[in-house]
Formats: sequence, C-alpha cells, structure tokens
Amino acid sequence: MISNEIKLKLCNIVGLENYDDSNVGRLVYSYDATPQFQSMPDAVISPRNTKEVSEIVKICNEHQIPIVPRGSGTNLCAGTCPTEGGIVLLFKYMNSILEIDEENLTITVQPGVITLDMITAVEEKGLFYPPDPSSMKISTIGGNINENSGGLRGLKYGVTRDYVIALEIVLANGEIIHTGGKLAKDVAGYDLTRLFVGSEGTLGIVTEATLKLIPMPESKMTMLALYQDIEAAAKTVSKIIANKIIPTTLEFLDQPTLEVVEAHAQIGLPTDVKAVLLIEQDGPIEVVKRDIEKMALLCEQEHAVSVKIAESEAEADGLRTARRSALSALARLKPTTILEDATVPRSEIAKMVKATNEIAEKYQLNICTFGHAGDGNLHPTCLTDVRNHDEIERVEKAFEEIFEKAIELGGTITGEHGVGMMKAPYLELKLGSAGIAAMKAIKDSFDPNNIMNPGKVFAKESRKRVVVTQ
Amino acid sequence: MISNEIKLKLCNIVGLENYDDSNVGRLVYSYDATPQFQSMPDAVISPRNTKEVSEIVKICNEHQIPIVPRGSGTNLCAGTCPTEGGIVLLFKYMNSILEIDEENLTITVQPGVITLDMITAVEEKGLFYPPDPSSMKISTIGGNINENSGGLRGLKYGVTRDYVIALEIVLANGEIIHTGGKLAKDVAGYDLTRLFVGSEGTLGIVTEATLKLIPMPESKMTMLALYQDIEAAAKTVSKIIANKIIPTTLEFLDQPTLEVVEAHAQIGLPTDVKAVLLIEQDGPIEVVKRDIEKMALLCEQEHAVSVKIAESEAEADGLRTARRSALSALARLKPTTILEDATVPRSEIAKMVKATNEIAEKYQLNICTFGHAGDGNLHPTCLTDVRNHDEIERVEKAFEEIFEKAIELGGTITGEHGVGMMKAPYLELKLGSAGIAAMKAIKDSFDPNNIMNPGKVFAKESRKRVVVTQ
Repeated sequence: MISNEIKLKLCNIVGLENYDDSNVGRLVYSYDATPQFQSMPDAVISPRNTKEVSEIVKICNEHQIPIVPRGSGTNLCAGTCPTEGGIVLLFKYMNSILEIDEENLTITVQPGVITLDMITAVEEKGLFYPPDPSSMKISTIGGNINENSGGLRGLKYGVTRDYVIALEIVLANGEIIHTGGKLAKDVAGYDLTRLFVGSEGTLGIVTEATLKLIPMPESKMTMLALYQDIEAAAKTVSKIIANKIIPTTLEFLDQPTLEVVEAHAQIGLPTDVKAVLLIEQDGPIEVVKRDIEKMALLCEQEHAVSVKIAESEAEADGLRTARRSALSALARLKPTTILEDATVPRSEIAKMVKATNEIAEKYQLNICTFGHAGDGNLHPTCLTDVRNHDEIERVEKAFEEIFEKAIELGGTITGEHGVGMMKAPYLELKLGSAGIAAMKAIKDSFDPNNIMNPGKVFAKESRKRVVVTQ
Repeated sequence: MISNEIKLKLCNIVGLENYDDSNVGRLVYSYDATPQFQSMPDAVISPRNTKEVSEIVKICNEHQIPIVPRGSGTNLCAGTCPTEGGIVLLFKYMNSILEIDEENLTITVQPGVITLDMITAVEEKGLFYPPDPSSMKISTIGGNINENSGGLRGLKYGVTRDYVIALEIVLANGEIIHTGGKLAKDVAGYDLTRLFVGSEGTLGIVTEATLKLIPMPESKMTMLALYQDIEAAAKTVSKIIANKIIPTTLEFLDQPTLEVVEAHAQIGLPTDVKAVLLIEQDGPIEVVKRDIEKMALLCEQEHAVSVKIAESEAEADGLRTARRSALSALARLKPTTILEDATVPRSEIAKMVKATNEIAEKYQLNICTFGHAGDGNLHPTCLTDVRNHDEIERVEKAFEEIFEKAIELGGTITGEHGVGMMKAPYLELKLGSAGIAAMKAIKDSFDPNNIMNPGKVFAKESRKRVVVTQ
C-alpha cells in the first residue's frame, strides 16, 4: 500500500495527472500478454524524464515499494505483471528517438520507443537494426532490452544483446549510471551493459539506450520448403548450417500451426503438408542467389516435397507476416494459449520436435509447434482452457517434461521470452543451485531492498510451477 | 605467506611436482608483459583439472590467499602481476581442444590452449574464429576471455565477448558453475557468460569455454593507402563506415611506427609518408572486389597519395604480420615501452590523433601511434626509460591527458587491453563513482574475501597513477 504521504511525494514529482491509482487505471496494468497471471499494482506512474525516474526510485527504495518498469507488456513470461503490487512505471513520455548517428552507425533512444518505429526510422537512412521480435509492431525497445528479445533474424544477426552498446540506468538507490558508449571496443570494468540486457527490470531501470546499427543488406530472397515428415524438416536445419550457410531466417511451422495461420492470414499457405521451413537469405544479390540455390538443393536432398521461392517482396512479406502472426492466430482457437520457448542446440532440433510430440500425445494435449528452428528455439504452443483444471494440470506436467528434455539435450528453459514469474520455478533446472546463488548475489548487491520487479527470475520454490487462476 | 600446513594441503591436491615456491620459479611469474609492475607470488601452482582448481580455491578462500589465474601473461594492464602475493595459477595441463562441433559451429576448449593453435585447428575444418589479438601466437584463450581481447578483425566481427557462449567457472567459494550453452539464444537469468568475459579473473576462474564459430570467408583482399596528412587518414576511416562499408580490418600506423616496423620486418613498407591505412575485406569474391574498389576511391578522395592492393596472399600476410609486430618492433628502441589503448567513437579518431600529437609535443615525449582505427581504438605508444624519473613523470601526465581527452570525446580509457592494476586509477574517469560502486558490489558479492586477483580493476586511489619502480 502507498500511503497518502508517499502518494503526495510521488505526485509532486510527476504531476497529479501522471499518477493513477484509480481502479480502472490499475486494472489495465494488472496483467501482461502472459496467460494465468494477474495482480493489481497500487499505482501507475508516468515519469517524464530520467530525473523523475531517479526521484521516484529513491522514494520507493526508502519505503520498499516495488517498481515494475513496463513497455507495452507483450512479454510472455509474466515479466511485467505486478505480482507484488507497488507501482507500474510507464514510459509513454520517454518515447523519443534522440539521435541516429550515421558516422558511428548508432541510434540513441528512450525506452518507450516502439520497436517497429525505430526500425522504420533506421531503414529510412539505409541502415539496419536486425532484432525483430514478432511483437515488434507494439513492443517497445525498453521492453526488448529488458527481455533480450530475439526474433526471426537471430540466426544470422543475433539478438537484442548483440546491438546494445550503451545504457543510461537508474539504480535501486536512485543513482544514474552510464555504461558503454558509441564504442566498438570497451573493456573498462565489468560489462554492465550486457548484464542489464535481459535482466528483466530486476537490477535497475533503463532510461536511455544506444544501439549498434549495420548497413542495410542489399537484397533479400525468401523461400518455403514443404515436408511430409517433421523430422526431415528439422534435419534440414542442421544440414544447412553444417554446409556453412547461415541464412537470415530459418523458421519452422508444423501442420496444425500452418492450418491456423492460413485460416487467419489467407495467403495461400499449404495446409496439406506436415511441416514447412520458411527460409530467408539477405546480402549482396550474387551471394543471396547462390545460397538460396544451395539451400533449395539441401531441402530436396532431405526429402522436401516441394521448394518454392517467393517471386516478389510482397509475397515474401506476406509469408513473414503470416509467420509473425502465428501466436495471435493460435490464440483465437481456445480461451487459453500457453506458448513456451525451450531452446536446444540446433543439432538437437529433430529430437526436440519428436519429444514434444510424444509428450503432447502422452498428456493428450493440443500442442502446435513453430519457431526459430535455426536457433534451436521452438515455440511449442498449447491451446487449452484455464478453467479446465484437469487439463491445465496436464499442461503443467507436459511443459515440465519439455523443459527437462531441453536441458537433457544441452538446451535451456527459455531462448528469448525470459524467466519472469512464469519460468522462475524451472530456472534451477538450467543453472543448478550454485548458478542461481551467483545470480541472486548480483540481484542482492544491486537491489538490497528487493524493490526492482520483485518476484521475477528468482522463484520462491523451484520446479513446481505456480498456477494463478484468472 | 603460505604456511607449511597449507602448502602440504595444496601439494596433496596437485602433487609436489606441480607446486613451485622456489625463488626462480616465483620470479618467472612475478611480472607480465606490462612495464613497471613486478611483485613476487608466494607459489606457482599447476592444477590438472577443474576439480583440482576447485579444491585449491576452497583452501585459498578459507585462508584468504590471493589467486592470480594466468595464461601466457601477454596482457598490457598488469592484469596477471601478482601484486598482492598469493598463488599464480597456471593452465599448462589444462590446454586441450575438447571438441569442434561442426553441426553447431562451436569449439570447446580448456583455458590453456594457445589462441593461434585453436584458430589453426578451426580453420582446418573450414571454420573461422575471428578474434585475433596481436599476441595470438603466444596468448591463451583463457587469457583472451579474461581480458575480452580484441584484435585486427574486431571492426567487422567483434571481440572475444561476441564468441563466448558457454563457460565452466570455479567461483571463489569453490563451487563449479556452468553458464550458457551451445545455444544461439538463451535468456535463462542474468548473462553470467558475458559478465565473466573481461572480468580479468576478479570474479572466478574460467576452466572451460565453448566458443561460437562462423563459416570461413571465401576470399580476402588487402590494401595499403598512404597519406602525407595524418588527419586525412583518420577522416578516411569515418568516411568508409559512413559509406556503409564495414571492412574486416582498418588499421592505422603513423610514420614513426612505420619506420620502426619496416626496420624490423623489412618487407618494403613505405617510410616516407606520414601515415598508412592497412585495409582488408573478406567474404564472397564479388563483394570483396567491389568493396575494395569503393574503398580505394574513398581513400583517393580523402587525399591518399597512393593506394596499393596486395598482389598475393604472401604479400598481404607480410603486411598483417608487420602490423602485428608493431609493439615488439617499437619495444626494441628504448628500455621502456608504454602502450595505451584509449578508445573513441570512430567519428572522433581524427580529433584523438591530433590531440595525442599535441600532448606528446607539450610533454616533449616520443609517442608513436598505431592501432585499430576502424574501432576508434588507437595505441599511442611511448618510448621511454623507466630510470628517467623526470621523463616518466611527464609520461604519466601525458597519458592522463590522453585518457581525459578520450572520455571528453565520448570514449573509454581502454578498448581491449583491460584495466588491471595499470588503469585502475583512471576507471572512475569513465564510470563515475556510482558506476564503480555498482561494479564493486558485483565483485564483493562474488568474492567477499577478495581472493580473486585482488588489486585489479578497482584502485585504492583514483586518478593518480601508481608508478612502481622496477
């Protein structure tokens, strides 16, 4: 609870109009894109600049009030659900592109900038920001940084972490620090920049970021390889990489996903095959053509029943957009959609797909699988209903087995969605107790009063998933 | 001091033959490649495996004995000088390449592997490990990881950090943790992998690492652009990048460096020009040719007096080798060679070169400058004599001004050499006291007894350089 005295102090910082503790206002920010998690914050605050963030944090630290920084809330790990109350911090005023530096190939932004707006601004200058989470139309760059978001182009270009080179951060004690710089090389002390990327708002609040850009690739080609055998598709993925081709995108969709996506997008996707690979390459046209030809041959060798190259950018864009809409398309079918992103070394993709299907069958669940096959990062997605307690219990057991299988194959419990509250109980599977203790020590040293997005990353209890009823 | 009782315990772990506390044995490891720093360890220990490292660390932690992990000691920041005594830990037994995984494009190594041996093994498989510190013929990969080493190919391919994807680490309490994996994406908790890269052995001991590989570029071309105006050379660097070409290598050497390198290497380098740029591009041959042509034109537009393309790989290799030998060539001229690596945004290279020359003149010093211009990472190198106290005092003042100028231009005090003991007094210039406090909190949480390479990164006193007389 926030006392009237503290409320007054906070209102003095941001202005009355930027402090909302109405029921409606709080309800809006009581959940994010993650099913099964909801919790009311005490207030919603919209600071107008870094100084205000710092002043808010100082008050919260003094009074041990939780702070949940939030972009658009598109995360899938309950990372921005205010599970312990406190304040939700919005960046609706801190949403400017501050600079595009064409000499140093950098962009400096405030956290509230929408990812796609930033990408569009960058591309207008002939430059390229590769990370492209499927939610980029609505996600913010601040959210991407906190979650270390991935996307479809991760295979060739890496993830958000690989592009963040400088941060302005408000620490839990209210101090403002600056990490990194417009620098290709910087070894002045520990790499705080990358420590903060993916730290899910649990160590401090990112109030400004400088991101690395690269020249825009000159050309791009897109193709679709169709399979009647899921494992053959998965094997093709390993084979392409082993043949030393790194395509921009190497996405996998199984038949149930294909059917749903086609029903939603209606762009003529085949629905009579067991799986497709959506493959893209970009770069100089000669190289792109050569790589696409080689990959088409490899697909055929691995028993693709058909390989189709998109004939126009419009067609290619349709395919990409359809793929990006997979989650929202699937979400229309059943009341509850639970999407996971256990990730394995790409050589183990075929085994992981097989195991997922066996687990779905064992627990009699409807699991569709799609995702970034080239990254070993698949999204098995369970269509279920949170009100069906018996089924939800089987869902929990199935995902626990999926996580265990991923770890057994040398993988991880989350490739790009983050731990948040949802996967916290499983973190020990990946890290062991010593690994968790090391991370917890960092958390405690940065945030001794545990005000920064408390309840996230570190579980109160390991391995048993907490099911919150809506 | 290590008591006889503790010595016996340590000998029981590694065997008598791997524990050396003789005067000669200790003297050998009392210094590294950094001038002006020397301090005797109490003993030199060579563990044979991770379990032995863990047991050693437990004893050291119990008795608060400093541990300095050491590869080949090629660092230039006094990072492996045992300034507070204790034990130097050698990896001469832990020097195996454990696996090259061609499906996942990774290599797994022990820390004692020589960098060039690893690169050679990787290239035999048609794969590529880009980081190439100039010391790679003798440096170890463990040392590279601890220092986050850079090299000549950093501009296009990044530094060591960008290739480390999994680590086995012995923490200060002796616990063994595993971070990351053979994974393109992994957001399971904080990024401990990258936190440890560049942490200079102050947080724990890396006992195994998995590194990302990429396909070997198909071809490579090398050229040399000659200038009679240093700033014109520097401006060319910015212009190439602003034209959206990212070459593999973009090295700068000024006339004094050229003269010395040519005298040493005798490969026909021009010595009658004020500066040269050594430029390389790699990739598909069509692209390489196109980029080299474009860059040649840009060099001419920026008043290069001559542009020469290497006619053979032998000639190109000679140029690269000559560049890599710059430090050892310079070191032959005077008793003491002090090499710095203040780094700036690449748009500021011209200003930084100009400022460096003005500072050298102001303090009447002989400073040669060469380095990775494309990274904004120059190595102003002062040829001096540590016995000349008056001159050394001027050297200290000059480098302090160079650091201040770099920070003023948005740069950093060290691009790739690390902080160690040498640059610790200047770290606050870059980070401010709040930034240092944040890093110190991490150090304290990982290593509460301060046994892991103590005295490094964090200075006892800021801004005033500690001069240790040899």
